[in-house]
Amino acid sequence: MRYSQLFIPTLKQSPADAEVASHQLMVRAGMIRQLASGIYSILPLGLRVLRKVEQIIREEMNAIGGQEVFLPSIQPAELWQESGRWGFYGKELLRIRDRHDREFCYGPTHEEVITDIVRRDVKSYKQLPLLMYQIQTKFRDEVRPRFGVMRGREFMMKDAYSFHADEASTQKTYEDMKRAYSNIFTRCGLDFKMVEADSGTIGGNFSHEFMVLADSGEDAIGFCDACDYASNLEKAALAPPAATTEPASDGAPVETATPGKKTVEDVAGFLNLTPRDIVKTLVFEHEDGLVAGLVRGDRQLNALKLKNHLGCNWLVPADEKTIAEKTGKPVGFLGPVELELDIYMDHEVAVMGHCVTGANKPDAHLTGVHPSRDIKTTATLDLREVIEGDPCPRCANGRYQIKRGIEVGHIFILGTKYSAALKAHFLDTNGKEQPCVMGCYGIGVGRTAAAAIEQNHDGNGIVWPMPIAPFQATVIPVNVQVDEVRQAAEKIYQSLQASGVEALLDDRNDRLGVKLKDAELTGIPCQIILGPKNLEAGTLEFKIRKTGESKEIPFPDGLASLPDLIKSC
Amino acid sequence: MRYSQLFIPTLKQSPADAEVASHQLMVRAGMIRQLASGIYSILPLGLRVLRKVEQIIREEMNAIGGQEVFLPSIQPAELWQESGRWGFYGKELLRIRDRHDREFCYGPTHEEVITDIVRRDVKSYKQLPLLMYQIQTKFRDEVRPRFGVMRGREFMMKDAYSFHADEASTQKTYEDMKRAYSNIFTRCGLDFKMVEADSGTIGGNFSHEFMVLADSGEDAIGFCDACDYASNLEKAALAPPAATTEPASDGAPVETATPGKKTVEDVAGFLNLTPRDIVKTLVFEHEDGLVAGLVRGDRQLNALKLKNHLGCNWLVPADEKTIAEKTGKPVGFLGPVELELDIYMDHEVAVMGHCVTGANKPDAHLTGVHPSRDIKTTATLDLREVIEGDPCPRCANGRYQIKRGIEVGHIFILGTKYSAALKAHFLDTNGKEQPCVMGCYGIGVGRTAAAAIEQNHDGNGIVWPMPIAPFQATVIPVNVQVDEVRQAAEKIYQSLQASGVEALLDDRNDRLGVKLKDAELTGIPCQIILGPKNLEAGTLEFKIRKTGESKEIPFPDGLASLPDLIKSC
Repeated sequence: MRYSQLFIPTLKQSPADAEVASHQLMVRAGMIRQLASGIYSILPLGLRVLRKVEQIIREEMNAIGGQEVFLPSIQPAELWQESGRWGFYGKELLRIRDRHDREFCYGPTHEEVITDIVRRDVKSYKQLPLLMYQIQTKFRDEVRPRFGVMRGREFMMKDAYSFHADEASTQKTYEDMKRAYSNIFTRCGLDFKMVEADSGTIGGNFSHEFMVLADSGEDAIGFCDACDYASNLEKAALAPPAATTEPASDGAPVETATPGKKTVEDVAGFLNLTPRDIVKTLVFEHEDGLVAGLVRGDRQLNALKLKNHLGCNWLVPADEKTIAEKTGKPVGFLGPVELELDIYMDHEVAVMGHCVTGANKPDAHLTGVHPSRDIKTTATLDLREVIEGDPCPRCANGRYQIKRGIEVGHIFILGTKYSAALKAHFLDTNGKEQPCVMGCYGIGVGRTAAAAIEQNHDGNGIVWPMPIAPFQATVIPVNVQVDEVRQAAEKIYQSLQASGVEALLDDRNDRLGVKLKDAELTGIPCQIILGPKNLEAGTLEFKIRKTGESKEIPFPDGLASLPDLIKSC
Repeated sequence: MRYSQLFIPTLKQSPADAEVASHQLMVRAGMIRQLASGIYSILPLGLRVLRKVEQIIREEMNAIGGQEVFLPSIQPAELWQESGRWGFYGKELLRIRDRHDREFCYGPTHEEVITDIVRRDVKSYKQLPLLMYQIQTKFRDEVRPRFGVMRGREFMMKDAYSFHADEASTQKTYEDMKRAYSNIFTRCGLDFKMVEADSGTIGGNFSHEFMVLADSGEDAIGFCDACDYASNLEKAALAPPAATTEPASDGAPVETATPGKKTVEDVAGFLNLTPRDIVKTLVFEHEDGLVAGLVRGDRQLNALKLKNHLGCNWLVPADEKTIAEKTGKPVGFLGPVELELDIYMDHEVAVMGHCVTGANKPDAHLTGVHPSRDIKTTATLDLREVIEGDPCPRCANGRYQIKRGIEVGHIFILGTKYSAALKAHFLDTNGKEQPCVMGCYGIGVGRTAAAAIEQNHDGNGIVWPMPIAPFQATVIPVNVQVDEVRQAAEKIYQSLQASGVEALLDDRNDRLGVKLKDAELTGIPCQIILGPKNLEAGTLEFKIRKTGESKEIPFPDGLASLPDLIKSC
C-alpha cells in the first residue's frame, strides 16, 4: 500500500494517561485512538496487526477441529439468571434495558449463549464432542480501565467452547488446546509461558494461563528453574516442608507483656527474636462469617489459596471493627490459642518447634507456643505466598524464579457447571441423560498485539515480530520529487508486491527524517531506503529495524534477493 | 470439511414466527438460531456464507481505496449530543448507563465516531480524501423485529465513511461507490436495482439504495420500462402533466349541499361525478404547525414528498380533534378555498379545469372550483404517489413499472451535516478553515445473505448462488459402511480439496434420504452422489441443485473433470 493513501496519524507525544509502552506506542504509531475510557477505535495500521493475530488463531483453532460461529453481543438476562451469574457478576457486567424494558447485558463471555444453543440442538452422544469458537467484541465494565487495549472495557477476544460426553474427551481437547495455544503464541513471535491458574469468575475445575513475559505485566509468574512447572504466582503451590529441626519446648505457653507492640517487627524486636519466630494470625470475612489464617511472621498469606480451600464466593480481610465485635479480642494481640474461629494453618507453622503468638489480651503475647500441640486447627494447608528461591513443589532440586507476565490466553475445564445449570443434557451410549462436560478457552486479540509491543520495542518505537507486523517491509525514497528516485522506489515496491511481500511505499512528499522516524515508530521489520546517491552508486540500503543493522544491496541487480532477505528477518 | 464434524442442526419444521422464506430456511438449514427477539447466533454454515459476502465487500472496498478500521460498538452520549442525534434518534437507539452512570449507546451507525477521529487527526486538504470502512455489529432497537436476520436488532453491517475537501471529490467517491456496490451484488450472484432514495435519519443531500428484487421485499421500487431511471417508490418523481384539456368554468364556485357525504366516493357518487373530479384536502401536522396538501380524488398523497419539500423533522396526518381546534372547520367537508393554512397543491390539481372541494361548512361542498384561480397555494409541486403505468419523469416514452425489493445497500452524500456540527474542519489550499464534505455507505451483510435466499430457493430449500455458497460441492456416499463406497467418496473429496474446490463430505452414517434432504435444504450448488451400483458401473452421479439436472460422470476416469464442471455451475 501507499503511505499517502493510508490513514496513519503518528504523534510525537504520548497521551498523558498512557503508563505502559504498548499503550503509548499504539497511540503514537496511529494504530488506535481512544473514544471513551477503556474504549478504542482501531485504525488501519492497528487492524492489520489484529487481523494477523486473528488469522493465526483461526488457523490453529480450525486445525484442532474448531468450528467458527458468531454469537450475539447482547444477551438476555434470563440466561444469566439460569446460570446464576446475573446476581453474581457484579458491576463489571454492563446491564441494559431495551425499549420494552426487558433486561439484557453486553456479553463479557458466552458460556450461557453457547450452552443454550447446545441444549436445544444436541441430543445424543453421537453429536459430541463439539468445539466452537468465535472472534468477537466483548465488554467488561472495568472499574479502572488502563494500559490502552490491554485492559480496555470493549475488546476483541477469541473465545472457544467445547462440549463432551465424558472427562476423557474433555481432557483430550484440553490438551489439543494447550498445543494450539502454544502454536499461536509461538507463531506470533512471542516469548511466553503456560502456567497453572485460578478459574476466577468463569468457574470450573482446572485452568491454565498463557503469559507473555514482560516487566510491565500485571501478573507475577512463579516457575521452576529445573523442571517445567509454572504457575500464576497467586496459585503457585508449595509442598509441606520437611519436619522441623528445632526442638519443641516442654512447658506450656507463657504470657509475656508486650506493651504497645502490635506488628511482627515490633514484637520480634522487643523479645529479641526474628519475624520467623512469630506466627501471624490474620482474620478474613467471607459469606458465612469469619475465619483465621496462620502464617509465619516473615511470610505473606495468600488469600486466594484460603478462598479456594474454603470454596467460598468471596473472601476479604476482616476490618478491625468486625473482628472486635465478633471475637471480643483486641486486634494486634489476637492469637490462635483458644480463639473461637475456624483456624487454617500454613504447613510451615505446623512444623515450628515453638513460636510467639498474640495472647488475645491487650499488650500481651504468648511465647513458647507449640503449634501442633497448642493450636486447634480446622486444617493445615499450603497457605503462604511463594517467593523467589522457594523449593519447586514438583521436582526435587528446582527453585522458584519469579517474573512478570501479561495474560494473553486462558483455558478452563468447566466440568458441568453451566451444562447442569442450563440443563444441556445428552443421551449417553446407555440411553441415560447426562449433562455435557465443558471446556472454555479464551485469547485476548488486542492484548496479544499489545503484549507483543511490551516485549518488542525500543526508544524509537515498536519492533514488530515479523508474523504480526502490519507490513513486512517499507520502501523509503529519500525524495519523491526526484524522478529517478521515485521511479526506482516504485519499481522496488512493485517487485516486492509481485513476490508476495507485504510492502508499504512511503510515497509522501516529506523530509527523509520524518519518514525514517515514522518507519522506526511503526516498527516495520525491514526498511529499504534509496536516494540519488544510492542510484549513482548502484545500491540501496537495507536496514533491519530490530538490530539497526544496515547493508548495501546492489540495485537493480540485487532486487531479486530482497524477498528472501526480508523473509529471513 | 466433514459433515460429521460440523454443527449443522437442520430442522424439518420452520419456527412459528418465520414469515419469509429466508428466515424459515436459515433456521431450518442450521445457519442461525434465535437468542432473543431480533438477536441471532450465527452457526458455522451461516458464518461461512456471511464471510464470503464480507470478503467480496472487502475486496471491492479496497479496490476503490477504502481502508479498513474497527470502531467501538459502545459510543458516548456526548458525541451524539454534539451531532444533535441523541435527542432526535428516539427509541431505536439502545441507550446504556455504565457503572459510573455515564450515558452511552450501542452504535446503530458510526458517523459521530468517525467524524470525531477525523477532526482530531486531519488538519489539511493534503490529508484528504479519506475513505474508511468497517464490517461490524450494529444494534437498532426495532419496535417489531422480524424476518430473521433481515430486520434484526443486532446485525452485521459494512459501513464506510468518506471525507473530502470539495464536492467534486465527494462526487467522484460516490460514483466509485456506486460501481463498487454494483460489483459486490453482481459478484454475490444477485438480481438487483440501484434506485434513488430518501436520506431518512442519516440525513444528507442525496442517496441511492441497492435493492434485491424479491416479492417478499419490504420496499416498492418504481422504475422506467424504457430508460434506466429507478427510485424507491416513496421518492419516485412525476413530471408536471401537460396543461389541462378540460375547460375552466367561468363562474365562481357554487356551494352545493352534500348531506353526510364525507368520502371522495360518496361525494362523487352523490354529484354524479368520478373521484378524479374531486380534490382531496389532507391536513398534516409537523413541528411548526398544520399544513394542507391537495391531490386529485383518485390519487394518494405521498407524505414523504411533502415532508422533504418542507424540510421538517417529522410530519404526520393531523387528527380530527387537532384539525377542528386549529382551523374551526368540520373534518370531511374541509376545502382549500379560504382555508387559513399553508396549502401545497399537486401539479395535477393545478391543471384541473374545475373541481369539487369541501366547502368548510358541514354537509356542503363547492363545485366549479377552478384551482389556479380560486385556491391560494404556498406552492405547487409533485405531491402524489406513483402508480404503475405513470409516465417516466426522465424519458419521453417510458412508463413506470413497480416491483418489490429488499434494501441491501444504501449510499449517501451527507454534505457537511456532521462535519459542521462536530467541527471536523481542515485548512484548504488558501489556508482557510472549511468543514469536510462527507459521504456514507452501508451494506447489510446478513441481509444480503437473506436476500440471496429470497431470490434463490425452492420447495426443497436454499439454492445458493455459487459465489456465496457455504460449500461449492457436497460429496454424498450412499452408505459409508460399505468400504469401497466410503473410500471412493474420500478419494473424490480429497481430489476436490486439492483442486481448490470447497467441498463438504457427508460422511454421516445416515440413510441416503436424510443426506439428500439436507443437501437440498442447505443448498450447496453441486451434489456428487455415489453408491455400490455406481462403483459397479464405473460412474458417479453429478447433480446440480438449481436445475435438478443430473448426469453420470465416469469414475475414476472423470475425476479430473469435476473441478471445471463445478466451477461452471
